[in-house]
Amino acid sequence: MTAQSNAATVKIFDTTMRDGEQSPGAAMTLEDKVELGRILEQMGVDIIEAGFPAASNGDFEAVRAVGGVLQNSILCGLSRASPKDIERCAEVIRSAPRGRIHTFISTSPIHRKHKLNMSQEQVLDAVTASVTLARNFTDDVEWSAEDATRTERDFLRRCVEAAIKAGAGTINIPDTVGYSFPDEYRAIFEDLIANVPGADSVVFSSHCHNDLGLAVANSLAAVQGGARQIECAVNGLGERAGNAALEEIVMALRVRGEDLPFQTAVDPAHLMRASQTVSRITGFPVQYNKAIVGKNAFSHESGIHQDGMLKNTQTYEIMRPEDVGQGATSLVMGKLSGRHAFKNKLEELGYALSDNALADAFHRFKELCDRKRHVFDEDIIALVDDQIAHADAAIQVTRLRVVAGTDGPQTAEIDLLVNDEQVWKTARGAGPVDAIFNAIKAAAPHEATLELYQVQAVTEGTDAQATVSVRLSANGRSVSGRASDADTLVASARAYVAALNRLVALQGRSGDANAAA
Amino acid sequence: MTAQSNAATVKIFDTTMRDGEQSPGAAMTLEDKVELGRILEQMGVDIIEAGFPAASNGDFEAVRAVGGVLQNSILCGLSRASPKDIERCAEVIRSAPRGRIHTFISTSPIHRKHKLNMSQEQVLDAVTASVTLARNFTDDVEWSAEDATRTERDFLRRCVEAAIKAGAGTINIPDTVGYSFPDEYRAIFEDLIANVPGADSVVFSSHCHNDLGLAVANSLAAVQGGARQIECAVNGLGERAGNAALEEIVMALRVRGEDLPFQTAVDPAHLMRASQTVSRITGFPVQYNKAIVGKNAFSHESGIHQDGMLKNTQTYEIMRPEDVGQGATSLVMGKLSGRHAFKNKLEELGYALSDNALADAFHRFKELCDRKRHVFDEDIIALVDDQIAHADAAIQVTRLRVVAGTDGPQTAEIDLLVNDEQVWKTARGAGPVDAIFNAIKAAAPHEATLELYQVQAVTEGTDAQATVSVRLSANGRSVSGRASDADTLVASARAYVAALNRLVALQGRSGDANAAA
Repeated sequence: MTAQSNAATVKIFDTTMRDGEQSPGAAMTLEDKVELGRILEQMGVDIIEAGFPAASNGDFEAVRAVGGVLQNSILCGLSRASPKDIERCAEVIRSAPRGRIHTFISTSPIHRKHKLNMSQEQVLDAVTASVTLARNFTDDVEWSAEDATRTERDFLRRCVEAAIKAGAGTINIPDTVGYSFPDEYRAIFEDLIANVPGADSVVFSSHCHNDLGLAVANSLAAVQGGARQIECAVNGLGERAGNAALEEIVMALRVRGEDLPFQTAVDPAHLMRASQTVSRITGFPVQYNKAIVGKNAFSHESGIHQDGMLKNTQTYEIMRPEDVGQGATSLVMGKLSGRHAFKNKLEELGYALSDNALADAFHRFKELCDRKRHVFDEDIIALVDDQIAHADAAIQVTRLRVVAGTDGPQTAEIDLLVNDEQVWKTARGAGPVDAIFNAIKAAAPHEATLELYQVQAVTEGTDAQATVSVRLSANGRSVSGRASDADTLVASARAYVAALNRLVALQGRSGDANAAA
Repeated sequence: MTAQSNAATVKIFDTTMRDGEQSPGAAMTLEDKVELGRILEQMGVDIIEAGFPAASNGDFEAVRAVGGVLQNSILCGLSRASPKDIERCAEVIRSAPRGRIHTFISTSPIHRKHKLNMSQEQVLDAVTASVTLARNFTDDVEWSAEDATRTERDFLRRCVEAAIKAGAGTINIPDTVGYSFPDEYRAIFEDLIANVPGADSVVFSSHCHNDLGLAVANSLAAVQGGARQIECAVNGLGERAGNAALEEIVMALRVRGEDLPFQTAVDPAHLMRASQTVSRITGFPVQYNKAIVGKNAFSHESGIHQDGMLKNTQTYEIMRPEDVGQGATSLVMGKLSGRHAFKNKLEELGYALSDNALADAFHRFKELCDRKRHVFDEDIIALVDDQIAHADAAIQVTRLRVVAGTDGPQTAEIDLLVNDEQVWKTARGAGPVDAIFNAIKAAAPHEATLELYQVQAVTEGTDAQATVSVRLSANGRSVSGRASDADTLVASARAYVAALNRLVALQGRSGDANAAA
């Protein structure tokens, strides 16, 4: 292991908004990315890869907007080896105080042959040209060897050497297909660091996929092999089985600090909020037994374990739920709580609303108190997040009435505000949700297909608010919408409309529901 | 690495029904366990740990029932070190052609002090006594050192030696708190196998928890260190963040067979069906980006990846979805399909129904065809599974009518058959689901608390059937119910009632809804 600039520190590079967004159905809006960017910066993430600026104008604007809210974290954009990609990236990263261009090209024989149709020498030339161009715009350039782990080792060494010579400060060695074992992944880093000229002047980085369930182990093995940056994503989001989970990496390094003596700048108390935000934005549920951030991650069911836990929590627990922001659900307020207490509670939960938004939120809070016995922190978060998400949307649900049951037919009657115009429609369907969606389609015609429909209760008890997630796809693009309400059907209507608004927004913010078609 | 009886083969020990069932909310009925036992045997699992026979009469009967359907797989029951536990286990494993007693005791200092209040010598005596007693009943005895990875190494060696001397044929070294790193876990096996007298005559086993995301890597490291049995669970179910995922272990060994030359007897084509069955039984959703069995595990969203995939699937894919039973959703049948075609389709999907059950299923299939344009394999599976789950239940939903929407109040009117008696109730609620649950509570009074409510669409499209999962808890026990219907509200009512029936069944099959109180 050679000396690195900060031997004891490992940089956390979050790619939730780039590789994570590449999960089918995980498309994020500009607003989503800004919200998540704020949380990642607050949490202490070193580098935030916010997107692929050359992919579309929408992606470009979203990355720029994230940069606008960053103070400390480095804003990073991904770009292929082409001048156009790199120039777009260079333009966008100026929006943040510190920016990085991340450029990549495939190096493995199978990718060279089938994807690039390029020889080894052509790839080497592209590495030099792309990194050199990127360095014209910024001192902070990262270069990645796509499919590095299936690349001939001697050719990989030559590519890395070319990238270092051209001025890359960070060298990323992705396990693109999630194929590696820890020992072999570690060995690649040891080899490169020992044998590539100039390796001691750059930071090596891991980027692991979880196809065989080994992403976290491989990332830690990379650090043992000399890597000092880990690319990862909240909830392990990413292509296919996803990337290494940020929360698992951070906690593994904390819990086992004495044996793996590396630290990160991430404050784990923010992990739960980051996880919940990503789950809400994407509509992807977090598995109950997901490590660190799952509902059951700290629960003990068996009598044997409970007995041990009562005697000494350390018998079965190597970390505490409060370390990662998994607090006990706290009873907060009810009918008698005033506006001032409500405002204080919002501030405690991290929200700063304008006077108008506060008035709206307080009104909805009072309505909720009439319908729900106990109002928990989660209820207030769902209520405010929902309000933030649905303000200024092109289509809004004004009124809904549904008649349903075993005898049928199920009918829905809906009033929508479509571009400031009231539209009223009724429709039948195979079930109340189908009837509602048919009515929305009648009021705001579109061709989107429903890919996923999902309901989760926000808190316990039969009067819990429900959060509904809807995933729609149109023209090969898929988006998620989410809404919360004590009435599942109202939440369903609003979630469907939220997804529809998002499709409209992604397709150029034309404000026309038909744009989703 | 010393020689083992089968150097090239690693045994798969499934603990979905024991450690998996210990997840909060994952309690399984006897029928659930029998269904899962059949699938695990069909899949080729070597050892099936079906429960903890001494925990309750219900657990005992469930393990016995699983044994009744096994032909090849070994039936295993867990037991503490006490004679009573071991005797109950010995009694139950006779139900299968081949049975194993799995007995354990904690060996770590923190467990000895806080949980057992026993000295090292007392623990050693207990190991010898428990294994000796178990060997009186069967030649196949497994002994586990609970919290082995936090145990003093010299004491662990002495415990393992005592267990081998007393006649244990399998020695399990659990990472009970999910604390280990691969290198150190592997080193424990290498140490024990090299230094404990008699180690070459037994099979060493891994049992890993995923608290830091390392369970699969640790299991594979154990095999590299000489272990020849891996304990794991479908979907990674288990206490807290769960156990090593069976499907990830099996596929890692297959995909990387040339570097880790070990084989298992598991046929991966059954992995998806096992995953979906466990998800249905427990009501636990599978994360979209879950390795091997997640919805997105084989999906490619980004243009770059799609382009590569079109040119050559190996550019981004190291295994094929069909290898693990993830088939493309196939359009199967519609209104014009006859009873014979329907029966053939059921057989193809693995169902063998009685004539009466077939007639019922066909009737419901025809009803579904009237409401849904395209009927997929998944729809038929949901329909039949639902029918199997709800037959002979104490409480059944006869009729439901709901009026809901933004204007309120939401009301539900329900007809229930409670122990063969018709009960009719109406109720209001904060939303239609709350109203339904209130009406059920009025018709079949009980004190259970709603812990989770969740809806997922079975297939794509707005007319998809919805599967609703409900988790109820009463008296510290929690159960899940699940139901499918094109009408989400009907599915909600039936899922709630299914959970209620399960609570009744677990509490002694008294057939009285009030038993759930």
